[in-house]
Amino acid sequence: MKVVVWNEFRHEKNNEEVAKIYPEGMHETIAAFLRDEDVEVTTATLDEPEHGLTDEVLQETDVLVWWGHLAHDEVSEEVAEKVKQRVLEGMGLVVLHSGHFSKVFKKLMGTGCDLKWREAGENERLWVVDPTHPITAGIGEFIELEQEEMYGEHFDIPTPDELVFISWFKGGEVFRSGVTFKRGNGKIFYFRPGHETHPTYHHKDIQTVIKNGVRWAKRENAQTPYYGNYQPLEEL
Amino acid sequence: MKVVVWNEFRHEKNNEEVAKIYPEGMHETIAAFLRDEDVEVTTATLDEPEHGLTDEVLQETDVLVWWGHLAHDEVSEEVAEKVKQRVLEGMGLVVLHSGHFSKVFKKLMGTGCDLKWREAGENERLWVVDPTHPITAGIGEFIELEQEEMYGEHFDIPTPDELVFISWFKGGEVFRSGVTFKRGNGKIFYFRPGHETHPTYHHKDIQTVIKNGVRWAKRENAQTPYYGNYQPLEEL
Amino acid sequence: MKVVVWNEFRHEKNNEEVAKIYPEGMHETIAAFLRDEDVEVTTATLDEPEHGLTDEVLQETDVLVWWGHLAHDEVSEEVAEKVKQRVLEGMGLVVLHSGHFSKVFKKLMGTGCDLKWREAGENERLWVVDPTHPITAGIGEFIELEQEEMYGEHFDIPTPDELVFISWFKGGEVFRSGVTFKRGNGKIFYFRPGHETHPTYHHKDIQTVIKNGVRWAKRENAQTPYYGNYQPLEEL
Amino acid sequence: MKVVVWNEFRHEKNNEEVAKIYPEGMHETIAAFLRDEDVEVTTATLDEPEHGLTDEVLQETDVLVWWGHLAHDEVSEEVAEKVKQRVLEGMGLVVLHSGHFSKVFKKLMGTGCDLKWREAGENERLWVVDPTHPITAGIGEFIELEQEEMYGEHFDIPTPDELVFISWFKGGEVFRSGVTFKRGNGKIFYFRPGHETHPTYHHKDIQTVIKNGVRWAKRENAQTPYYGNYQPLEEL
Repeated sequence: MKVVVWNEFRHEKNNEEVAKIYPEGMHETIAAFLRDEDVEVTTATLDEPEHGLTDEVLQETDVLVWWGHLAHDEVSEEVAEKVKQRVLEGMGLVVLHSGHFSKVFKKLMGTGCDLKWREAGENERLWVVDPTHPITAGIGEFIELEQEEMYGEHFDIPTPDELVFISWFKGGEVFRSGVTFKRGNGKIFYFRPGHETHPTYHHKDIQTVIKNGVRWAKRENAQTPYYGNYQPLEEL
Repeated sequence: MKVVVWNEFRHEKNNEEVAKIYPEGMHETIAAFLRDEDVEVTTATLDEPEHGLTDEVLQETDVLVWWGHLAHDEVSEEVAEKVKQRVLEGMGLVVLHSGHFSKVFKKLMGTGCDLKWREAGENERLWVVDPTHPITAGIGEFIELEQEEMYGEHFDIPTPDELVFISWFKGGEVFRSGVTFKRGNGKIFYFRPGHETHPTYHHKDIQTVIKNGVRWAKRENAQTPYYGNYQPLEEL
Repeated sequence: MKVVVWNEFRHEKNNEEVAKIYPEGMHETIAAFLRDEDVEVTTATLDEPEHGLTDEVLQETDVLVWWGHLAHDEVSEEVAEKVKQRVLEGMGLVVLHSGHFSKVFKKLMGTGCDLKWREAGENERLWVVDPTHPITAGIGEFIELEQEEMYGEHFDIPTPDELVFISWFKGGEVFRSGVTFKRGNGKIFYFRPGHETHPTYHHKDIQTVIKNGVRWAKRENAQTPYYGNYQPLEEL
Repeated sequence: MKVVVWNEFRHEKNNEEVAKIYPEGMHETIAAFLRDEDVEVTTATLDEPEHGLTDEVLQETDVLVWWGHLAHDEVSEEVAEKVKQRVLEGMGLVVLHSGHFSKVFKKLMGTGCDLKWREAGENERLWVVDPTHPITAGIGEFIELEQEEMYGEHFDIPTPDELVFISWFKGGEVFRSGVTFKRGNGKIFYFRPGHETHPTYHHKDIQTVIKNGVRWAKRENAQTPYYGNYQPLEEL
């Protein structure tokens, strides 16, 4: 199984606070905990040629993990469109935190993907609302994060296929913070936490959820539907 | 309640067979059966300036009905984007038949929206699978169409919010032919039947469903969510 | 349109605190705000013969509103089963607060319907997560209740057809507090707030939501599917 | 992984035609193709004590497969209730064909579970409508069955969590023939085909789907939510 972790990789270069938490970039932290016997993980970042997402890379990728924030607009229309097409072809996609506003996610959702937000370092509690879901394996009834950015409803996404987590924030808001979507032959998991100034991706439970999400997003059915003109299967 | 029926209006000019069925254009047939005491209906077509969908028109429209086929590419990117935005703002949208491949529908779905098709004039039977749905009021357990174009699965759309009709085709295929979606503040109803060479929009049951669909798609909640930076509602 | 408000009507007789808030019983308060030009409202309570829900009453009822708490077990199996069957036949059902544990709701859900709870008079904030929904017409982005009982996830219900409200509680929990279900030909709305010791049903927004819920739950399609042995519609 | 295949096992004893197709009973045929390195399969039948489903057996079972038809009423209320509770606790359930009318399935659904039917040996074609679903791995765009009993809509079930297959029948009907549900901590897959007088469970694709369904239904999250009175996690 081949996973690519994509990161904008700007905050880590421009902000000392972030650099302390993720000295080699968020993508390296995430890649490290995703690596496993049967999981090969590489990384790609915005400032590489084609943002590190060449046709070859995309073609071989089973699941792409996406973190972006400041520079969504710098992702080329062409690459964003290619990533979208690969998801529709069957590549899994795990979108993290501020990736809700990425070109790729917005194209796949068809909605504004906007929300309320606040950087106040308040605590967040993610409640499991679907205890049957494989993405929740290995964690308890909730995940507690001491400090996070707040995201609040209304979250302008299509009705999710599955609602897995709902977040509670100290300041009084709630958020659908773990949601899945099927698009074409691809599976998408959006997972809210991960503001750059907090050590969220070092948290065991968050790592478990992302690992589960990556495995869940991998397509298990290799067959692609036929589209177009079609001969009758029965006599007319 | 203000409804606009949008039609490509090309087949009716170029094809005698179609012109016989819809002498004044499909939009006039549809507009006529939608008109009611409380429903004001106008029309708009591709070859009008801005395709008849100026900012003013869009701003005042409660529900837009869309039929297009040959000339999806001639709809300007700008107008398509404006229509999408108005749906996200709360305008209802009823997409008919080959409108599944329109720019507007594809942008809102985020998927390829492709399908199988065949023009063989076979019969179609649309089964009601959600008898609680207001869109099915006034019709029986199924709608029978003597001759229609076939559309077959896989239909490459997101999981619908509601599945209202499933079609059976003589040649051996099935199709999710009545489906609803919520996007932003807007409600969308896709309804399959309506190939230009068959008198589908003269069929009483089809008219009932489109009338129901238009009423269902009208937004009843005028409130728009706030997005952006947000102060805490509780003490931090 | 005929609505029946059913109430256990015990707390109001046994608890002075409750009696002060609802001197004539919760059902009378709810019935009063539901009455409208086109809405005829009556009430029924546990201690009436057949709990006030005779075959005749049920047969004529378009939508039943249900509040119960202490005495779910005193509702006869027979009446509970009849109510369930009427919902499957097309009667709308609005289940309030502790009605989540009623025989009727549990039979219709097929799950345990359990949850976490706490009576601490903390504040609750119900966030609208589906701004397209007619049940949210006339209210803002959230409803604020100064004091309520807490209900927390996991709420052991089937995946709702629609998720309309999510509640935030001061003590750190969240809850899917406004959810809809379709069962047979009937529509069901569960709405969380309404602990007997708080004046929740005197709150304008809560009244608006229940009014909307009752209108939404009324069936608009009078047709009932045929079940059983069936002759082919096509030649075999 | 421990799987139990439950069969009514009456047709095979009373009907020579059925006995020829399933000489040792349908359960043995199904058990045989489900057995695998990591899957231990046993069987249980109606006429065993406690229908072969003792507390011990249920406690150890990861996934239960259910086939019943003639004798739903002979399944004791007690065993049906226990099976339901085990599903809510997390045991997977695969319900086949006429099992739609079993006590267990009806209790879990909360609806009538009725449908149209016809025994005419016509052909059935099951179309995949969710190509992302693991249950569809290893099969093509549809499964073709030469002869089957017809089941037609309306199928009186709750809105499924996922719709995987839609069937086409020669006689003119359609059916949601592969559907999933989550109930409590358990996952349920209903799969339509399998009339006793046709060799359906000898069909490679049908076997693949049931194998996939059993694996999908196995719970991957061992955690059980807490229900009841709950102390605040935040200061009140």
